[in-house]
Amino acid sequence: MDHPNRQRGRIRPAPESFLSTADSARRRFLRQSLAFGGGLAAASAHAADPILELPEHSRTLGAPVAARGYGMPSKYESNVQRRESPGLTRTSISSIAFAPLQSLFGIITPSGLHFERHHSGWHDIDPAHHRLMLHGLVRRPKVYTVDELMRFPSVSRIHFIECGANTGMEWSTVAVPTVQYTHGMLSCSEVTGVLLSNLLDDVGFDATRAKFILAEGADGAALTRSVPIEMALEDVMLVYGQNGEMLRPENGYPLRLLVPGVQGVSSVKWLRRLEVGDELWNTREEALHYIDLMPDGVHRQYTWINECKSVITAPSGGQVLLDKGYYEITGLAWSGRGRIARVDVSVDGGRNWQAARLQEPVLTKCLTRFRHDWVWDGSPTIVQSRAVDETGYVQPQLRALRAVRGTRAIYHNNAIQSWRIAQSGEVGNVQVY
Amino acid sequence: MDHPNRQRGRIRPAPESFLSTADSARRRFLRQSLAFGGGLAAASAHAADPILELPEHSRTLGAPVAARGYGMPSKYESNVQRRESPGLTRTSISSIAFAPLQSLFGIITPSGLHFERHHSGWHDIDPAHHRLMLHGLVRRPKVYTVDELMRFPSVSRIHFIECGANTGMEWSTVAVPTVQYTHGMLSCSEVTGVLLSNLLDDVGFDATRAKFILAEGADGAALTRSVPIEMALEDVMLVYGQNGEMLRPENGYPLRLLVPGVQGVSSVKWLRRLEVGDELWNTREEALHYIDLMPDGVHRQYTWINECKSVITAPSGGQVLLDKGYYEITGLAWSGRGRIARVDVSVDGGRNWQAARLQEPVLTKCLTRFRHDWVWDGSPTIVQSRAVDETGYVQPQLRALRAVRGTRAIYHNNAIQSWRIAQSGEVGNVQVY
Repeated sequence: MDHPNRQRGRIRPAPESFLSTADSARRRFLRQSLAFGGGLAAASAHAADPILELPEHSRTLGAPVAARGYGMPSKYESNVQRRESPGLTRTSISSIAFAPLQSLFGIITPSGLHFERHHSGWHDIDPAHHRLMLHGLVRRPKVYTVDELMRFPSVSRIHFIECGANTGMEWSTVAVPTVQYTHGMLSCSEVTGVLLSNLLDDVGFDATRAKFILAEGADGAALTRSVPIEMALEDVMLVYGQNGEMLRPENGYPLRLLVPGVQGVSSVKWLRRLEVGDELWNTREEALHYIDLMPDGVHRQYTWINECKSVITAPSGGQVLLDKGYYEITGLAWSGRGRIARVDVSVDGGRNWQAARLQEPVLTKCLTRFRHDWVWDGSPTIVQSRAVDETGYVQPQLRALRAVRGTRAIYHNNAIQSWRIAQSGEVGNVQVY
Repeated sequence: MDHPNRQRGRIRPAPESFLSTADSARRRFLRQSLAFGGGLAAASAHAADPILELPEHSRTLGAPVAARGYGMPSKYESNVQRRESPGLTRTSISSIAFAPLQSLFGIITPSGLHFERHHSGWHDIDPAHHRLMLHGLVRRPKVYTVDELMRFPSVSRIHFIECGANTGMEWSTVAVPTVQYTHGMLSCSEVTGVLLSNLLDDVGFDATRAKFILAEGADGAALTRSVPIEMALEDVMLVYGQNGEMLRPENGYPLRLLVPGVQGVSSVKWLRRLEVGDELWNTREEALHYIDLMPDGVHRQYTWINECKSVITAPSGGQVLLDKGYYEITGLAWSGRGRIARVDVSVDGGRNWQAARLQEPVLTKCLTRFRHDWVWDGSPTIVQSRAVDETGYVQPQLRALRAVRGTRAIYHNNAIQSWRIAQSGEVGNVQVY
């Protein structure tokens, strides 16, 4: 590879506004570049050079260990937070807080920044009083305590969760300004728990009649979703651990279902009940939400898989390239059907595509971080990413999806995302493709 | 596998004390087991059954989204925190906060619980004013801003960091009561940053003369450590990202070195300077700390690799098995020389060993979670784990290490850990092996 670092460009955040997602680190405005090539002698020309004049923190004692028994981010990162998009729902109890994808690295979402979507708000439930009932087409219906579930053989896996409504605002002509709002209903955690198949064995489920399992949450919404028995026996988990510690209250503490690769609503939080049955329940929740309104007025129901999808997180909407030169284009790819096989990046609006580097390990039903070297020549252009999963499925263009599903589907938009870069360096969301 | 879940045992935490590490979830005392086998009819016999009588949180609206823009653990998990062991050092500014390994799942350490070891306390450094100087045997010495470093091509990897003094108290006859204090100077994160080899290319280092690189921190200790050029060119990173977000202040925000597989002190935090040289620096820090006092009075210096090691985290010291029956024995294994190849578990004090299950993916210089099914018959016994890495190195017994290094070495104790289980179910730390 040619040495891209010699001509690095600059990115600065968008101006502050209620929709701004300026983050402090990745795109901090560079007031001054201290890089120089003249060696130490040159450095002495800078009177306030921090290398020669030791800063306060190099001359003083710092804070003691465990001054905070549970640590928090730097005060300089206070702008990196999940954000609600005002007006999306009538109340913030039944709303969405988006994860700041433009500020995140790698594939793990810090639990403090995991996206939120509640139908009736969140509670901090006392695990000592929480129970899970498993009944229906089983020989020995049971009620489990959380402690009992934690004593089953456990597994840990890294999986993404994506809301079925993620990127939903992009179906129509609304181009949401930043990646936090276009794709921020997406997070990825190392989860730990019990395979549902273990529990089904424990209660002796009726393997000849069982077709679907109904999951119900312990919040006010009593959220219910049907899960096919094939999924339940493959990789569905009862999760209590997230990124090394117990689940966060907003993510279903002390117990949630996780249906890998399926829209987030199926991974019922605050899980209290699982019922084994022989048909789809078609509950009120299932009939009303996460159904795709097609152009002919028909609703597609039970379209639950998160199909293969990707998005460039940098450069992305709201950011500004301060100069031409080298940039690492980076983003995330994922598929509800398995592993990511390839991600292509276009820096000319889709005319040419080049394979991006995929960060190892590439795991099933997990985010994959991709990276691509790019030298911006200063001309206006459009950058895009296109993911392919191990089944061979290729992430579609928005116009292809719209041709079939129209503009009112709300859910399951996995189209290629286009970011336009203006000559000024400003990055915006465009929907012309 | 025989169905282990039919006869599950119970674990309860140790009594509270200043050294207690009782955690709320994994080992919560089970006051009552509500598991029953009679189906729904039987459930109705329980007047206060939470399945039949909906709890408050199932009948009310919860909290809105993003009520906390940056989320925190449940209030019921407040006991899961890093802890200082009083008296280890003269002040808590130069001390250690141990990670609560007994409460953690999988391999990722939540950044809020990452262990801490400072030589002069920690600071929350403003990244806008932080600089890294790279000089010495290079053609173009440079000073970089954090923003400039963040624009280099990046990599993300999951690596452990272990303090060279981890398990140091076990060299002598002091048997520290819990795994938080025996092995809690160990954490594992998905880190993101720039390969040091990229930066060395950027300044044009002198490949014929360069032998070691000196790293220096920007805290009051101005901590310095020598890093061999072979490591620098292989996998040493300049890290700014940890578990998806920016480093935490206690872990070196905004920039730290990471020397994978090497004792933590080499991964200099608040990194401000790298100097390329042709010999070991043997700085004051290197001459005084992390040197192993051998029985003949000689100090071994530069013994920096974290050799292959493992520990059972459950059951572990301070916990109590409440009944005989099934337990999942689980723990962590790691090696500074590469991947873990195998972990054996003994439940009879080392007479017999069986291969444990390793959680995939098994990554290089990364924690590996292992698990082993065990049915406790109620007799007193000793449980141990023994890791083997891909080089074939086998984790040694404590007596083998002591035979060579005596009892005053303090550092680099990677011996097999033994937990004794009494007939009462109490688990304690023993050193007879």
